[in-house]
Amino acid sequence: MPQGFETTEFKARLTGAQSRMNAADLDAILLTTEPDIRYFTGYLTRFWESPCRPWFLVLPRSGDPIAVIPSIGAALMARTWITDIRTWRAPDLEDDGISLLAETLRDLGPRIGTPSGLQSHLRMPLGDFARLNAALPQPIGADADILRSLRLVKSEAEIEKIKTACQIATRAFDRVPEIARIGQPLAPVFRDFQRLCLDEGADWVPYLAGAAAPGGYGDVISPADDRPLEAGDVLMLDTGLVHDGYFCDFDRNFSVGSPSPDVAAGHSRLIEATYAAFEAARPGATAAELFHVMDKIVTGGAGGSEAGRYGHGLGMNLTEWPSLIPTDHTPLVEGMVLTLEPGIELAQGRALVHEENIVIRENGAEWLSQPYGAEMIRV
Amino acid sequence: MPQGFETTEFKARLTGAQSRMNAADLDAILLTTEPDIRYFTGYLTRFWESPCRPWFLVLPRSGDPIAVIPSIGAALMARTWITDIRTWRAPDLEDDGISLLAETLRDLGPRIGTPSGLQSHLRMPLGDFARLNAALPQPIGADADILRSLRLVKSEAEIEKIKTACQIATRAFDRVPEIARIGQPLAPVFRDFQRLCLDEGADWVPYLAGAAAPGGYGDVISPADDRPLEAGDVLMLDTGLVHDGYFCDFDRNFSVGSPSPDVAAGHSRLIEATYAAFEAARPGATAAELFHVMDKIVTGGAGGSEAGRYGHGLGMNLTEWPSLIPTDHTPLVEGMVLTLEPGIELAQGRALVHEENIVIRENGAEWLSQPYGAEMIRV
Repeated sequence: MPQGFETTEFKARLTGAQSRMNAADLDAILLTTEPDIRYFTGYLTRFWESPCRPWFLVLPRSGDPIAVIPSIGAALMARTWITDIRTWRAPDLEDDGISLLAETLRDLGPRIGTPSGLQSHLRMPLGDFARLNAALPQPIGADADILRSLRLVKSEAEIEKIKTACQIATRAFDRVPEIARIGQPLAPVFRDFQRLCLDEGADWVPYLAGAAAPGGYGDVISPADDRPLEAGDVLMLDTGLVHDGYFCDFDRNFSVGSPSPDVAAGHSRLIEATYAAFEAARPGATAAELFHVMDKIVTGGAGGSEAGRYGHGLGMNLTEWPSLIPTDHTPLVEGMVLTLEPGIELAQGRALVHEENIVIRENGAEWLSQPYGAEMIRV
Repeated sequence: MPQGFETTEFKARLTGAQSRMNAADLDAILLTTEPDIRYFTGYLTRFWESPCRPWFLVLPRSGDPIAVIPSIGAALMARTWITDIRTWRAPDLEDDGISLLAETLRDLGPRIGTPSGLQSHLRMPLGDFARLNAALPQPIGADADILRSLRLVKSEAEIEKIKTACQIATRAFDRVPEIARIGQPLAPVFRDFQRLCLDEGADWVPYLAGAAAPGGYGDVISPADDRPLEAGDVLMLDTGLVHDGYFCDFDRNFSVGSPSPDVAAGHSRLIEATYAAFEAARPGATAAELFHVMDKIVTGGAGGSEAGRYGHGLGMNLTEWPSLIPTDHTPLVEGMVLTLEPGIELAQGRALVHEENIVIRENGAEWLSQPYGAEMIRV
């Protein structure tokens, strides 16, 4: 399977950004985070795990992107389609790329934007950002949500990568009965499940959460503990594994021994809600509408749970825009990749959450994960 | 092995922060990143992989920390020693915790700081940060480098966790001959090495880089490619795996078949440089001095390479302060954990990098990784 993307894909993304920049009258966009920079360059490295160096990509209103990066990254960046690569020897305690970046931006004009909305952050020291702003004719503002609007809709090549990630996870989930059994604590199950993901072809496994508790679990974000699995537990594993820089994000619930009637019924209702949202997910529907379709089934329309949403976008990040919540009226369009993630509370502190991944197509949705059945697999 | 830390440890960290806050006349510190928040709370979850929700911890000048977090995290936060937990249902497209945070901060006084120096960033949307500042009597400033000064020096319990991570990686490296052989491409070697790390006890493997190329490699941050290993290649694997929230960070070079004389000599010189730095690493020496000790051996004192440094701090992040560079005069003190990471360029585009992990003790350094021999292991 080919890695990365054709240069034409990056150029199309750049064109999309630049037409929006013209509409918003922005001279340049400053990008600082891993997915935003990779989106326009294809620069893929796990070196971002090191927080000590900032990395900058500048999109001018016209012309190709300019990388302003630590020299340690020059060789790898030169293997992408980017040709204007400006480097400094980082870390520099006095001037960590700021004068080089300021000079680059000053040449492009005064109106600079950077992603500033929900789910964004600026990956550089605040002190350096103040120094940068002081060296520019006017302070850097917002990017008019251009990054969000571009990344919200995936290309066919991106969808293919997410689908591959989903297929890898589907195969790993199918093998959970090999690694989970009564008496086994959750910590080694977590470890073994990550090994299954790698075994089935994941490049790496950035995200794994889960739980195991009698008749349902209290939350879905905890790390593993050392309590051994017992009959009557529901075991949930939720993974975001990565294939060529793209995530899947879905979970599976397993019953340790036979499920109690309320667990079986609750799980079945989650599957029903997921399928109902799948049917409703088509161009023209909104994120909020998918929420209500699921909420009607799992709570009778009570408005959801404290976890706050029944799904979200997915792509280069584990979670992206939009959110399936009552207040997010983002219209669904062809090429959006979403998770459907309804939760149900069986009793205080006993919940179940189910999750699948889909893509919006012209006439409806398509499963990216292999949808799970109403009956939980037993381990 | 016990997970996490005793509450006394968190209280000692808080006391350390508060005495520095008094000296700097700060009423509160605002924390937004995973390691900074975990440092004071013990809140450990891989859910940070999701960028969609901000998380806040507020350290008051006196009294216990206040968590201002999405309600999805309340149950897990309640299992830490933190009792003042204020939540909102995130994501909220209108007010994503900002009014709740502003109210919390206003009660504590006008002088608020947040980490703003090298290697820091603010993990919340810039637009929301502007809204927060507008709701406060005066804008949030820097934290007087308090987080850096605290996290720079590790407690015995922290050192124990890093040492365990190093031991896991040492065992995984010992098993590389099981997974690497002539004809095998690097991509499956990467995948298999991560499986070995998990097999040896890693909780997860956030970082893996490496290279394989004839007689040395061009850079140390690239992902795996599909080129099969050949006789004469140097195979390098560099991992940051995690045990209970703490990283190791070191690499190993392997020779595919017999090394050429220049590769063997170069590797031997790197080991010599590492041991020389180990001998020099004691309280009172500086980061810059360790740089020069190694640089004299690997370049004859030319001032290092474009990669920019010969090592760095290590802990809850893969890379931390200080940097082993000529301009970083941070004095070494007992309890600092460092990587020693000299590199040598054998020819244009043919480099070797070696790395070990140490801790500074009262009378000198102690190895945390099991130091590698001058002779490369052959695969």
